[in-house]
Amino acid sequence: MNADILKKLSEISVATATMQLLKRGLRNVSLAGVMPINNPVQPITGPAYTLRFVPMREDLSTPEVLGAADYSPRRAIEECPKGAVLVIDGRDRGDIAVLGDLLTERLRQRGVTGVVSDGGVRDFEETLAVGLPIYAAGPAAPAHIAGHAAADREAPIACGGVAVLPGDIVKGDGDGVMVIPQALAEEVARDGPEQERYERFAKLKIREGRPIPGVYPPSEETRKEYEAWVVAGELEG
Amino acid sequence: MNADILKKLSEISVATATMQLLKRGLRNVSLAGVMPINNPVQPITGPAYTLRFVPMREDLSTPEVLGAADYSPRRAIEECPKGAVLVIDGRDRGDIAVLGDLLTERLRQRGVTGVVSDGGVRDFEETLAVGLPIYAAGPAAPAHIAGHAAADREAPIACGGVAVLPGDIVKGDGDGVMVIPQALAEEVARDGPEQERYERFAKLKIREGRPIPGVYPPSEETRKEYEAWVVAGELEG
Amino acid sequence: MNADILKKLSEISVATATMQLLKRGLRNVSLAGVMPINNPVQPITGPAYTLRFVPMREDLSTPEVLGAADYSPRRAIEECPKGAVLVIDGRDRGDIAVLGDLLTERLRQRGVTGVVSDGGVRDFEETLAVGLPIYAAGPAAPAHIAGHAAADREAPIACGGVAVLPGDIVKGDGDGVMVIPQALAEEVARDGPEQERYERFAKLKIREGRPIPGVYPPSEETRKEYEAWVVAGELEG
Amino acid sequence: MNADILKKLSEISVATATMQLLKRGLRNVSLAGVMPINNPVQPITGPAYTLRFVPMREDLSTPEVLGAADYSPRRAIEECPKGAVLVIDGRDRGDIAVLGDLLTERLRQRGVTGVVSDGGVRDFEETLAVGLPIYAAGPAAPAHIAGHAAADREAPIACGGVAVLPGDIVKGDGDGVMVIPQALAEEVARDGPEQERYERFAKLKIREGRPIPGVYPPSEETRKEYEAWVVAGELEG
Amino acid sequence: MNADILKKLSEISVATATMQLLKRGLRNVSLAGVMPINNPVQPITGPAYTLRFVPMREDLSTPEVLGAADYSPRRAIEECPKGAVLVIDGRDRGDIAVLGDLLTERLRQRGVTGVVSDGGVRDFEETLAVGLPIYAAGPAAPAHIAGHAAADREAPIACGGVAVLPGDIVKGDGDGVMVIPQALAEEVARDGPEQERYERFAKLKIREGRPIPGVYPPSEETRKEYEAWVVAGELEG
Amino acid sequence: MNADILKKLSEISVATATMQLLKRGLRNVSLAGVMPINNPVQPITGPAYTLRFVPMREDLSTPEVLGAADYSPRRAIEECPKGAVLVIDGRDRGDIAVLGDLLTERLRQRGVTGVVSDGGVRDFEETLAVGLPIYAAGPAAPAHIAGHAAADREAPIACGGVAVLPGDIVKGDGDGVMVIPQALAEEVARDGPEQERYERFAKLKIREGRPIPGVYPPSEETRKEYEAWVVAGELEG
Repeated sequence: MNADILKKLSEISVATATMQLLKRGLRNVSLAGVMPINNPVQPITGPAYTLRFVPMREDLSTPEVLGAADYSPRRAIEECPKGAVLVIDGRDRGDIAVLGDLLTERLRQRGVTGVVSDGGVRDFEETLAVGLPIYAAGPAAPAHIAGHAAADREAPIACGGVAVLPGDIVKGDGDGVMVIPQALAEEVARDGPEQERYERFAKLKIREGRPIPGVYPPSEETRKEYEAWVVAGELEG
Repeated sequence: MNADILKKLSEISVATATMQLLKRGLRNVSLAGVMPINNPVQPITGPAYTLRFVPMREDLSTPEVLGAADYSPRRAIEECPKGAVLVIDGRDRGDIAVLGDLLTERLRQRGVTGVVSDGGVRDFEETLAVGLPIYAAGPAAPAHIAGHAAADREAPIACGGVAVLPGDIVKGDGDGVMVIPQALAEEVARDGPEQERYERFAKLKIREGRPIPGVYPPSEETRKEYEAWVVAGELEG
Repeated sequence: MNADILKKLSEISVATATMQLLKRGLRNVSLAGVMPINNPVQPITGPAYTLRFVPMREDLSTPEVLGAADYSPRRAIEECPKGAVLVIDGRDRGDIAVLGDLLTERLRQRGVTGVVSDGGVRDFEETLAVGLPIYAAGPAAPAHIAGHAAADREAPIACGGVAVLPGDIVKGDGDGVMVIPQALAEEVARDGPEQERYERFAKLKIREGRPIPGVYPPSEETRKEYEAWVVAGELEG
Repeated sequence: MNADILKKLSEISVATATMQLLKRGLRNVSLAGVMPINNPVQPITGPAYTLRFVPMREDLSTPEVLGAADYSPRRAIEECPKGAVLVIDGRDRGDIAVLGDLLTERLRQRGVTGVVSDGGVRDFEETLAVGLPIYAAGPAAPAHIAGHAAADREAPIACGGVAVLPGDIVKGDGDGVMVIPQALAEEVARDGPEQERYERFAKLKIREGRPIPGVYPPSEETRKEYEAWVVAGELEG
Repeated sequence: MNADILKKLSEISVATATMQLLKRGLRNVSLAGVMPINNPVQPITGPAYTLRFVPMREDLSTPEVLGAADYSPRRAIEECPKGAVLVIDGRDRGDIAVLGDLLTERLRQRGVTGVVSDGGVRDFEETLAVGLPIYAAGPAAPAHIAGHAAADREAPIACGGVAVLPGDIVKGDGDGVMVIPQALAEEVARDGPEQERYERFAKLKIREGRPIPGVYPPSEETRKEYEAWVVAGELEG
Repeated sequence: MNADILKKLSEISVATATMQLLKRGLRNVSLAGVMPINNPVQPITGPAYTLRFVPMREDLSTPEVLGAADYSPRRAIEECPKGAVLVIDGRDRGDIAVLGDLLTERLRQRGVTGVVSDGGVRDFEETLAVGLPIYAAGPAAPAHIAGHAAADREAPIACGGVAVLPGDIVKGDGDGVMVIPQALAEEVARDGPEQERYERFAKLKIREGRPIPGVYPPSEETRKEYEAWVVAGELEG
C-alpha cells in the first residue's frame, strides 16, 4: 500500500470513509460492536493482518495447545507485520477474551499499529496501560480457549459482521472501526478530504442558521458559495 | 401540554415517573438500550415529535434521496417544534447512525429540547461537542441510508421496544428514557413529587439503620412518622 | 469458608482465577454482561447468597406484593449475611432494575460485601453514591416488578449465563465477575498467586523484547530462568 | 383442583383461555417457542409440576450425577403426580434435550398427562413413538448435562418466557401451551365456553358475508341476534 | 399494476425473482422467518396492502379498542382490496398472533389474495381450514393486543426485516416470501422466465453429468448449446 | 478413515454418539439449528469436507464472481470427495441459501454422501426432489451472494455453533447433526453399540414398570440382570 494513500486515509474520519464507500455501493464495512477501549481514543489506520477462531471444542481448546510451535494465534502475534493492524475474528463473543496484557505488550514491542476484534480483552486495566490502540467489545476475563479454538491466520474473516480480507485497510476512531477494500483505497483517499472540507463549510452555514435543505446536500447556489469559500480559504493560505 | 404539568414532570426522575405508570398498570414505557451520551447527563422532558425508518432497500436508500424536498428525515429536522423531543425509531440498530453533528447543530439552532433514538450517532465526538442532549445507543459510523430507508414523521413508532406516540411526554436522565402517555401526564405530575418526598424520608430512615420492611413500602406507623416529618419540614420552611 | 483461603482469593485477579478453573476443566464460570458500575472499580470476593426471579406475570408482580412479610426479594435484603455477596438472577434483563439506592443503602448498612446481577440498577447516580460495590448490566429505570416476579432465595441460580450456587465464591474486578465452586476454592487460592508471579516475570521478559513462544507458556529454559528470578527476589526480600 | 373446572378448561382452546386471561389483564401467559411435537396434536390440560435447570458447569453436570438418589431431574420423573403436567425449565435452549424415550416411557407408565418444555427432545422418533403428549422446542441430540445443571423441583420456573408456578393449570393444543393461574381457573372455566359459543356464531355470520365491525366485537344489534340464536339452538337441543 | 406483468410474475418462482433483483443490486428483498403455513403450499403474487403495529402499551392495547370504528387493524381487514396481499408488520414477534380464523374467513370472503406477516397465527388449525394462502411465523395463541398496539395502514412497513411499501409486488411460494419494487416489476417479469428456462436446460446438463463450471454460469460454448436447445424446443412446440 | 469404523458409526444414533463424546468430556459437538429436510429422514455418516463463507461485501459478492475458475464454493462442489459430507459454514444465516437444486443434483451425481449447513436451501421443493440427504436451517430464497462472500475450502469452520475440521466424522439423523473428532472415532465406534444395547434393555424394563433409578444408570443388580439378558440373547442368536 502506497504510503501517501495510507497517510491521506489516516487523515479522514471513519464516518467520512464509510460515506465514501456508501457512495460506491458498499454498505457493510463498519464493524458492529467494536469500540475503542483506550481513553482518549487513539485513531488507527493500517493494513489488516487477520487471525481466525472457530467455536471451542474440548479436544482442541486445551491449555496444552498454547505451547505448540505452530499454534496460529501465537504465530499471528509474532508475525503480524510492523505497521499492520491485527484483526481478530472473535466470533462476536464479547464475553471471551482474545488477548490480554502480555500479548498486547508483545505486539507493541513488535511495532504493530493496533488490534481490532469483536471479542473481549482480559486483564483489562493492565492491557490499557500498555498503551497500544485496541478496538474491541470490552473487558472479559476468560482466556480465548474457554470459548474458541484456533483456526488460521491471513485468511478472510468476519469481524463485527463485516468481511475483512488480509491487506484491506482498517480504520478506527471514536465512531468505531471500518474496513476499506484495497482496490478502493486510492479513491477514498482522493475524495474523502474534499467531503470533509465541504462538511466544515456546511457546519459553518448551519451555525449561521441555515436550514439543512440546500446545505446538505448542497443546492447549486450553495455549491457556488462553497467554491468561493474554498478559493478565499486558499488565498488566505 | 400545560406548562405547569411539564415543569412538574421535569422535576421528577425517570425512575419515579416509571413507577407512577407501573402503579397505573403500564409496565412497558422505558426504552431499552437508549442511554444519555452527554457527559454530564443532561436531563430532558418534552413532547415527542416522531420520525420513523424501515429497513434499507437499495432502491430506496441511495445518497440521491437525501436531496429530495420532501425527504421525511430532513423535514423532521426542520419541522420538529421548538421545545419538542425528536424521537427517532432507529429499529434497534445501534450500529447505524440516525444523525451526526450537522443535523444536531441544526436541531440546537432550532430550539429542539433533545434527541432520543435506539439508533447510533456518527461523528460522535463532534456531535457531543454541539451540546444538545442526546439519548441513543452509542457511536456508529454508517449514515442512516446504510441501514434504513425513510418511512414517515409524526406517526406512532417503536423506540427501544416501546410505543411512542406524537405528543407523548418523553423524559430522559441518568436512568435512560421513558414515555408518559399524554392522558396520564397530569396524574404523574401530581403524584410523582410526593413519591420522591417519601423516598427521601425512607432513605433517611434506612441510613439510620432501619430495615426495609416497614419503611418501603411504609407500615401504618412509618406512615405517621412520615407525616410528622413532612409537617416539621414545612414548619422549618 | 476458611478466612485465609478467602484472603488469598481476594488477592488474585478474576482473570487468574478464571484460568485456574479452566486448567481444571471449568470453562463456564465468568458472568457475561455483568460489569463493575463503580468508578473506580471496587474489587470484591465473597460467598454467594442468591436471589432468583421468574418472568413478570401481572397477578404476581403488583406493587402490593412488595409489602408482604415473606416477599423473598426483601427477605434477601435483610438476610444476606455480612460479608456475603448478594447475587441476583435478573434473567439477563439489563433493561429491568433489580435494585436502587434504598436497597443498596440497606445492604451497605448490613455489611454485605457487594451486589452482582445480570439485571439493571435504577436511581443509578444515587445508587453509585451509596458506595457499595455493584456489578450489574447498567442503568435501568423500571422497578423489578415491571419485568420480574419473585421466585426464591438461596437456591441455585443462573446469572450472566453461569450457574451460581449458594456458598460459591464470587469474585469481581475490572474484568467482570466470576464464580469459584466451593470445592475448588482451596486449590485456586493455592495456585493462583504462583500463576500471577510467573506472569509478572513473563511481562518483564516481553518488555525486554522476548517473543511469546518460550515465555508463555514457558520453555524448559525459561522455567529455569524464572526459578532463579524467584530465588533472587526472595533473597532481595 | 376441582375436577369439573379442569374438565371445562380442557374443553376450551388455548386461544380462548389466553383471551380470557387477557381480559383480566394477564398478557404474559403463552409459552414462546413451545410447540406440540406429536402428530396429530394431542391437547392437554392439567396442573403443573415443575423442574428447573441452571447453566451447565463442568463440576455439576457430569454423567456421575445421574445416578445420585436425590438427583432432582430423576426425582421429578418418579414423583410428578398422575394427571399432572411435567413442566421443565429448559432455559430456552432448544438445542439441548431435557428428555428422551426412556424417561418419556416412564412418565407414560406413571400416568402423567404430558410434558411441556422450552428445551429439546432426544431420540426424537422413538420418543414420539411412546405416545405421551409432549410440547417442546423440537429435536436435539445432547443429553441435558451437556448444557444444564440440575437445580430443583416444584419451585416457580420460567418456561418459554412465562412464569409457571407449581399447581398452575397448563393447557396445550395446536396453538402451543399457556398457563392459567390457579386463582383464575374457575373464572376462565366459566367464561371460556361462552366466548367460544359466540365465536361459532360470529364465524357463521362472517361466512354469510357480514363484515367484522358489528360482528367482532358484537354491536348491540348483533348481540341480540346472537341471543336469539342461542335460544333457538337450545330449543333444537 | 398491468395484469400481464402480474401474470408473468406469478409464473416465476420466488428464488428466480430474488435473483433478478440481486442482479439489479437489491439484496434485501426476502422476508426472513416468514413461511407458508398451508399444506400444500399455495403460491401467491399480488400488490401489497400494509398494516403496521407498534409495541403493546397497556393504555393502547385493551380489548375495548377492538370495537372502535376507526381501529386500523379492522379497517385493514375491510379495506384491503380484492386481489391484494395483506402484509402485516408483526414486529418479528412470532409468539403473538396477528390474526385468526374469523379475520381470515372475512379476508377470503372479500377476495384478498393472501396474508403475509412476520407474526403468528392463532386458532391455527381452524385458520388453515379457511383455505386462504397465509405466510407467517407459525402458530401463536395470544391475540395481537397481547403484544402489539395498532399504528396505521398503507404506510411503509418492515416485515421479516425487509421494507414493504404499499403497492410493491409480493410473491410467496415454498421458498418463502419476497417483495418486488413496483418500478422493477416489468423488468423482472421480462427476464425471470428466461432465467428459469436456462436453469431447466442447466439441470438437464447436470443430470447428464456435466460439472457446474461451464454450465452455471454458462460458458460461451454452453450458451450456444443452450440457444440451439431453445430453437429445437420451439420447433417441437 | 477405516471403513469398519465408519460402518459401526453409521449404525449408532446421533444421540448415542453425542453421549459417547460427553462421557469423554466433549459437550459442544451437536450443530444447533441444523435439521434434516428430507422426509423421511435420511441418516448420514461420513468425513467432513468443509466450505466457508464470510459476510457479504458488495465488491466481493457479485454475480460475476460465480463464473471465476477458482471460486471456492464451486470448487467445493466439484472437489468434495465421493462419500464425504459437504459441511458449509452458512454463518447461522437460515435466511440465506447456501445451495439449490442445481448444485445438489451435481453433488448427487458426484457421489457425495450429503450436505450439512446452518444456512438455508433455495428452490426448496426441487432440491428435496433430488433425493440427496440434506441437513440445513430450512427454505430460503436468496442466493448465497445476497448475504455471503466466499472464503475458502477445507479449513476449520463453525457450523451451528460447533467447530468442524476437515476429516471429522459427521453424523445426521432425526435428532440433527453432530461431529466426531477423527481421533475419537474408533472409541465411539467401539462403545456406542454397547450403549445402545443397554438402552434397549433399559427400555424393556421401564415398559415393565420399573422406575428410572436403578435402571438408568444401572444399579449393580440391574447390571447383572442385563448381563444375563445379553447372554440369553446371544444364545437365542
